[in-house]
Amino acid sequence: MTPTGSTPAAARRRAPARQGSLREHNLALVLRHVLDAAAPAAAAASGAEGEGGLATSAPSRADVATATGLTRGSVSALVDLLIGARLVAELPPVVTARAGRPAVPLVPAEGTVAGLGAEVNVDYIGVRALDLAGRVLAHRTTAGDFRHSDPARVLGLLAGLVGEVRAALPAEARVAGMCLALPGLVDRVTGPLRLAPNLGWRDVDVVALLAAHPEVDGLSVRLANEANLAARAEVRAGAAGDSFLYVSGEVGIGAAVVLDGEVFAGRHGWSGELGHTVVDQQGPRCTCGARGCLEQYAGKDAMLRAAGRDVEEPVDTLLDAAAAGDERAARALRSAGDALGVALANFVNLVDVDHVVLGGIYAPLAPWLTDAVVAQLRSRVLAAPWADAGVGVASGGPYAAMTGAAVVVLRAVADDPADWLDPTP
Amino acid sequence: MTPTGSTPAAARRRAPARQGSLREHNLALVLRHVLDAAAPAAAAASGAEGEGGLATSAPSRADVATATGLTRGSVSALVDLLIGARLVAELPPVVTARAGRPAVPLVPAEGTVAGLGAEVNVDYIGVRALDLAGRVLAHRTTAGDFRHSDPARVLGLLAGLVGEVRAALPAEARVAGMCLALPGLVDRVTGPLRLAPNLGWRDVDVVALLAAHPEVDGLSVRLANEANLAARAEVRAGAAGDSFLYVSGEVGIGAAVVLDGEVFAGRHGWSGELGHTVVDQQGPRCTCGARGCLEQYAGKDAMLRAAGRDVEEPVDTLLDAAAAGDERAARALRSAGDALGVALANFVNLVDVDHVVLGGIYAPLAPWLTDAVVAQLRSRVLAAPWADAGVGVASGGPYAAMTGAAVVVLRAVADDPADWLDPTP
Repeated sequence: MTPTGSTPAAARRRAPARQGSLREHNLALVLRHVLDAAAPAAAAASGAEGEGGLATSAPSRADVATATGLTRGSVSALVDLLIGARLVAELPPVVTARAGRPAVPLVPAEGTVAGLGAEVNVDYIGVRALDLAGRVLAHRTTAGDFRHSDPARVLGLLAGLVGEVRAALPAEARVAGMCLALPGLVDRVTGPLRLAPNLGWRDVDVVALLAAHPEVDGLSVRLANEANLAARAEVRAGAAGDSFLYVSGEVGIGAAVVLDGEVFAGRHGWSGELGHTVVDQQGPRCTCGARGCLEQYAGKDAMLRAAGRDVEEPVDTLLDAAAAGDERAARALRSAGDALGVALANFVNLVDVDHVVLGGIYAPLAPWLTDAVVAQLRSRVLAAPWADAGVGVASGGPYAAMTGAAVVVLRAVADDPADWLDPTP
Repeated sequence: MTPTGSTPAAARRRAPARQGSLREHNLALVLRHVLDAAAPAAAAASGAEGEGGLATSAPSRADVATATGLTRGSVSALVDLLIGARLVAELPPVVTARAGRPAVPLVPAEGTVAGLGAEVNVDYIGVRALDLAGRVLAHRTTAGDFRHSDPARVLGLLAGLVGEVRAALPAEARVAGMCLALPGLVDRVTGPLRLAPNLGWRDVDVVALLAAHPEVDGLSVRLANEANLAARAEVRAGAAGDSFLYVSGEVGIGAAVVLDGEVFAGRHGWSGELGHTVVDQQGPRCTCGARGCLEQYAGKDAMLRAAGRDVEEPVDTLLDAAAAGDERAARALRSAGDALGVALANFVNLVDVDHVVLGGIYAPLAPWLTDAVVAQLRSRVLAAPWADAGVGVASGGPYAAMTGAAVVVLRAVADDPADWLDPTP
């Protein structure tokens, strides 16, 4: 998952093009067009705060033909296949100003395919199912304290939620698979979770532990980093454009680079460890063993400590205190914003993105952080005079990582719809 | 140029596949196979220190058919087109152990297509022409001091070198275009050089200034960052694999991320500004205006100053002094290695690469820098226990950026050979 972008293209260059692959290519092309046209509505349906709203312009067969460059005849045949596979549905015909038959708007089918997005985080676990239309078909979360937890126990609880969500799905829904968001280093090549410092998990074969439960057995399961998945939800919400740096602030601090709508995962899938970049080489010791990591200045615990508060408190109390004029709380937030800004300036100098999205707890804290972050970016980014990096607030909605995980599963369906032409549930 | 990887793939997904594009796709597929098979020999031919050497296994038509999955008949027809276009050549037939006709080895054509790679750097300018076989067809450099120089004057000198190189090409060579390496921010979308701090160039329309000269007029010219291009030469040399972080140490410090053989250029092409990442927020003022940038600790001038030497001295004198037991020189180098290691650890945490290549002046200095760099990477990279980032020395040969620039031009030919089917010079 979370492709580097170049690998599929490189694979295609090395493969010969034949007649059979033509149909598959064009089938995916047509489905993607229908799904993309519905994307703003789909994002809105799952709670994102993007530009969505009501269904915008559901395309007709003729619109798809115009947009893709395929003939009307080809498009009609392909659309019929997609309708037969219950991946696309028709809305009632609408009479248009143009002459000829009324246009039949095409939309993603509702409730026929379910992508499961799951998450294990420090203070909750959860599972949600989305369909191709972006509707949340079912959703379960359980609060808890999962610091230094036993992976087998936590994944057993998660499997229970998977069972509950599957039981709540419409009868006609086919489950396309599951993607699990984890706050740590997930190996995108070989599979296991390497390290989730705040869960205290190290080298855990999460997929095998999940597969031991009947609720998950037989389901295709993939893992990914939570910041990478939350960034996908942000792409889908649309407000940040298709290229940005997503920052996920929690106790730890994750990040993801999005370029042209794709998450840049790095060699192993371990990119974006912003929390462990250095703010001060002689700074305080971090949970990772090094000194002066950003997490020790701008992580949730660090901010609460700097404000003289208990690290178990929710971040809202810090926000309330700062708003009520507590100078120590305000200073703690400004100082965190400075450190975050320095680390982000390094990131922008290295990776060249022109928009930063503050997610996780940084979303509600943004009014207190943004000025300091912007000032550091302006003074430290070499390219700032030509492309001042904007700083915005995440709009992927609550449980963005779970939404992004479900989207990853559904995207695999969209990329290869030929596998779904037999509509047996 | 320097693609992000995802854009061409995304464009292909949105385009319909048709019969005409099938032939173009397969033509490029066959040419790429012949070029890839010759790549180690091609890299060796242009002076890289990679694994190359003599031509390895030039494939026959049958080999190409097996490797690509195309039929022998298709391959033969496509190879004939490529030979007619003088992009591919045949070697004398060799009798194989297998029954049947002797195999005819296929190799890139020599001297028929020239890619021009040019460079403007702080102390020299140059142009070299490479052919598809990797041979240097012509090469000119001029030494000089181009700090705070006049762009029009320097580019006039460069145009003169272009003219000399073109005059020295074989009569049958068609010039495919030119790529110019610059030590600064090159906008890959809109074209101009934004900033080359050590040249003192800012917002220069380099392409227009070059096009004013008859030696360049009519030639397709593109620009790119020198570290990005040197990294391409390193990919081609093959010793560093296909995914690594390339560091180009000079007065300034550039870098490039290579993933799956592609340079990751970032949103505008401005990625890799390692020299302006922060080592110490309260550190000395940098030429960019900010404080404590890596260049102030590990750039060439900074190292010479720390060793008590004149910044005009060549780096060899620093190396000689350290080797002769000059403790101040040795300390300056160790200290630079520490700072470089911290900045690289941030980079690896953010971008997830598992190999670092030291290029530019860091190549000869590597024996004095590597231990400190490795120690910082081990202690600061979160994923180090699972994928210890190796540190190696560049092997792309002298003038790596110029070689990489020529390779970019030739690669465009390889990606779209259909444009070259009419072999008129």
